[in-house]
Amino acid sequence: MKNKKYLAGKHFVHIPGPTNIPDRVLRAMDKQIIDHRGPEFSEMAVRIIDNLKKVVKTKNHLIIYPASGTGAWESAIANTLSPGDKVLVYETGHFSNLWIDVARKFKLEVDVIPSDWRSGAKIELIEKKLIEDKEKKIKALMMVHNETSSGVKYNIQKISQKIQDLKHPCLLMVDTVSSLASSNFENDEWKVDVMVGGSQKGLMLPPGIAFNTVSPKALEKYRSSTLPKYFWDWEMMIENNKNGFFPYTPAVNLMFGLEEAMKILNEEGLDNVFSRHTRLANATRKAVEGWGLEIFCNCVESYSDSCTTIFSPKGIDPDHLRSVILNEFNISLGMGLSKIKGKVFRIGHLGDLNEVSLIGVLGGIEMGLSKVGYKIKKSGTQEAINYLAH
Amino acid sequence: MKNKKYLAGKHFVHIPGPTNIPDRVLRAMDKQIIDHRGPEFSEMAVRIIDNLKKVVKTKNHLIIYPASGTGAWESAIANTLSPGDKVLVYETGHFSNLWIDVARKFKLEVDVIPSDWRSGAKIELIEKKLIEDKEKKIKALMMVHNETSSGVKYNIQKISQKIQDLKHPCLLMVDTVSSLASSNFENDEWKVDVMVGGSQKGLMLPPGIAFNTVSPKALEKYRSSTLPKYFWDWEMMIENNKNGFFPYTPAVNLMFGLEEAMKILNEEGLDNVFSRHTRLANATRKAVEGWGLEIFCNCVESYSDSCTTIFSPKGIDPDHLRSVILNEFNISLGMGLSKIKGKVFRIGHLGDLNEVSLIGVLGGIEMGLSKVGYKIKKSGTQEAINYLAH
Repeated sequence: MKNKKYLAGKHFVHIPGPTNIPDRVLRAMDKQIIDHRGPEFSEMAVRIIDNLKKVVKTKNHLIIYPASGTGAWESAIANTLSPGDKVLVYETGHFSNLWIDVARKFKLEVDVIPSDWRSGAKIELIEKKLIEDKEKKIKALMMVHNETSSGVKYNIQKISQKIQDLKHPCLLMVDTVSSLASSNFENDEWKVDVMVGGSQKGLMLPPGIAFNTVSPKALEKYRSSTLPKYFWDWEMMIENNKNGFFPYTPAVNLMFGLEEAMKILNEEGLDNVFSRHTRLANATRKAVEGWGLEIFCNCVESYSDSCTTIFSPKGIDPDHLRSVILNEFNISLGMGLSKIKGKVFRIGHLGDLNEVSLIGVLGGIEMGLSKVGYKIKKSGTQEAINYLAH
Repeated sequence: MKNKKYLAGKHFVHIPGPTNIPDRVLRAMDKQIIDHRGPEFSEMAVRIIDNLKKVVKTKNHLIIYPASGTGAWESAIANTLSPGDKVLVYETGHFSNLWIDVARKFKLEVDVIPSDWRSGAKIELIEKKLIEDKEKKIKALMMVHNETSSGVKYNIQKISQKIQDLKHPCLLMVDTVSSLASSNFENDEWKVDVMVGGSQKGLMLPPGIAFNTVSPKALEKYRSSTLPKYFWDWEMMIENNKNGFFPYTPAVNLMFGLEEAMKILNEEGLDNVFSRHTRLANATRKAVEGWGLEIFCNCVESYSDSCTTIFSPKGIDPDHLRSVILNEFNISLGMGLSKIKGKVFRIGHLGDLNEVSLIGVLGGIEMGLSKVGYKIKKSGTQEAINYLAH
């Protein structure tokens, strides 16, 4: 479908990632390539890995792939597990389910804790599974930190604590794709063995690079894993990374951008980045409540800092609503995914974003709601302004 | 090692890829992201795939991964083969040997036709292997079109013809990473089943996207292949690509660049692109001969259009020579790889390159040779000028 008319002004990217790319990051990538086997590159690569470790709060290995987040999922599995291994997955939504698909394709036995996607983890369900696992057959617990389809954030710290308390030897693997550099994530403090991250959300980059952290325990599992890997092979990466090199051609220009993005994060300060995300997320939810719409996440302490999933008003197709908002007001919103497709729409509020942009976008959504015939309870935009002003 | 002094002017990237990125391509990528699930993106993706098929001369499926060329090797293997399958590989150099490593990691039985890396394929050796293979155990022949480590180009057309003549059912897989959009490559005419390509060479993009073509025969093999795959899974890609979408987040900004790069190729005309590459390659070799240095490739009809590998003068460490040329004259040259490391250096002459740039670079190398104490036979730069002027 073509946009029928010329849309003046800025396009507002409010899918829950990829996110708006700061001009500084675009300009940093808008630069001639350098030799990825030369001294300038290797010095930069060492700096980037060191700085990214600070963002992720880890002293473990940190690996950068020229790939997207899905690849970093596959990498987490292929590097640590063997066919027939059992893994436990908490169903958080569309993205946990895709990760389950990856695991099944790799011939793992996947034990899924089902959920309605709408609240945080019921830790007692994880506890039960781990206690029942007398023979320690569960080799890994796969968790999503922030589920982008539902707008629900999971308490990785508490889940990790439970694994420690039970002294269960499983690896803890965490998808941080839509939480990284938006919500606090403490890789080492939370004893995360493998983190799965991407560039195109809180890190404010285009898609195209993805990350794993690798704990000593995960590296030990690597030694006995029999799943085939080459492109994802951790050892080859770690060995080459020591001197700032890569076993194959890295995504050089995206790395220029990553270095600049981390400078920006550092200037704002990570804690300020996180509190800004929480503030803008709260403002968004104030607006949604003002409009009289229902937030998909039904558990306040599990609200996402990155995105909000909202039930479409009764009788209104959310994809029609999104299309009106795109074509009239130049805002991209996220669609419902998998089982909630056609039921919800999603507002991304992460990355390079401030109050004024968000208020504009909320205003656009408010006008879109009106255009499709929904009568709002009250001005959500005004609610957001009131919240942000105080 | 830091560059000790300020180097004025342009940096000349003459490793055999990544190559110089045209300003037009950089500017095309220097653009705000768009929704990869929205209409603008899907229309662009359909256009890009159609146009890239013209560059590769195929009507088969063409798949674009957010990955580097190594990933597209892995993909070719994981999508068509099963553990224990036998593949035949002609040893062309460092990159065929890496591909062999991938195959072995995926538990294939690899039959290697060894070579000294210095000449084109001895087709009779391939013929012998295929004739001996009465039980048709060889499932694929893996060839490199242009071997970037040696500067040797292989005659894929003749090899393919031999497979046809012998009616051998093996797949023909061809790595075109450093030949794509530099040397003529006719995917369908040459009956290539799987092409492996990358963005950072003749396509003049930064690294970060990679390609496969998939013939109907390769797709048939996909159905029976048991190697695990998800990120590389062809069927999932082909299904999503139909409507211009991807099963996971594509490298959107690199695709902006790819569209612009193909416009540039189209403006010059593919045949002109190829003859320019041949002309600049010939000029480079005239220079090398003028200096009295030995070209690694010892077979004139197998000279590469993309890069020239040159023996370092006796007693001179090629990496010292490269370092002097980098630090004095701001030119990046390629190092020797694997068994010829420390014996050769490489000049990349592919991508966005014209006569004047090349002459400058040859002049820089000539000055570098003099700096490290090599007495040239005569001015290679002058030889190149003479060649290019006529």
